[in-house]
Amino acid sequence: MLWSIIGTIAAICTTIGFVPQIIRGIQTRELSDVSPTMLTLLLVGCSLWLVYGLHLKDPIIALANGFTLSFVIIILLLRFLYNKNSSK
Amino acid sequence: MLWSIIGTIAAICTTIGFVPQIIRGIQTRELSDVSPTMLTLLLVGCSLWLVYGLHLKDPIIALANGFTLSFVIIILLLRFLYNKNSSK
Repeated sequence: MLWSIIGTIAAICTTIGFVPQIIRGIQTRELSDVSPTMLTLLLVGCSLWLVYGLHLKDPIIALANGFTLSFVIIILLLRFLYNKNSSK
Repeated sequence: MLWSIIGTIAAICTTIGFVPQIIRGIQTRELSDVSPTMLTLLLVGCSLWLVYGLHLKDPIIALANGFTLSFVIIILLLRFLYNKNSSK
C-alpha cells in the first residue's frame, strides 16, 4: 500500500513536472534554452512507453506517459512557434 | 522479447534525453528558459521512482531513474550557476 502510494506520487511528479515548463514558456514566450533534441528524445521515449503500457495493460504506465507525451508535444510546438516569431 | 526491446528503448530515450539539455546549457551558458519548478518536480519524481525501483528490485526502473536523477541535478546546478553569474 505504502509502495503503491510512492509509485503513484513518483508518476504524478514526473508527469505534471512538464506543466510548469508550458506555463513558463507561455508567460515569457521564450523556450530557446530548452533543447529540441531533449524534447524529441522524450517524444520518442514517451510514445514507446505508452505503447509498452498499453501492451502490459498497465494503466499507470499508459496514462502517465500519455499525459507526458501530450505535454512534450505542446512544449515542442510552442518552442517552434516562438522561435519562428522571434526570427521575423 | 520484442516488448522487452521496446521497453528498453523507451527507458533509454527518456533517460539520455536530458543529456542534450546539459550539452546545450554548457554551450550557451543559458538555462533561464528551463523551468526550475519542472526540474524540482522531476527531481522529486525520479528520486521516488528510484526508491520504488530499488524496492521492486527492478534494475531497469532503478537504473533509468538513477541516471535521470543525476542529469536533472546537473541541469539544476548549471541553471543556478549560470543565473548567478548573469545577475552580477
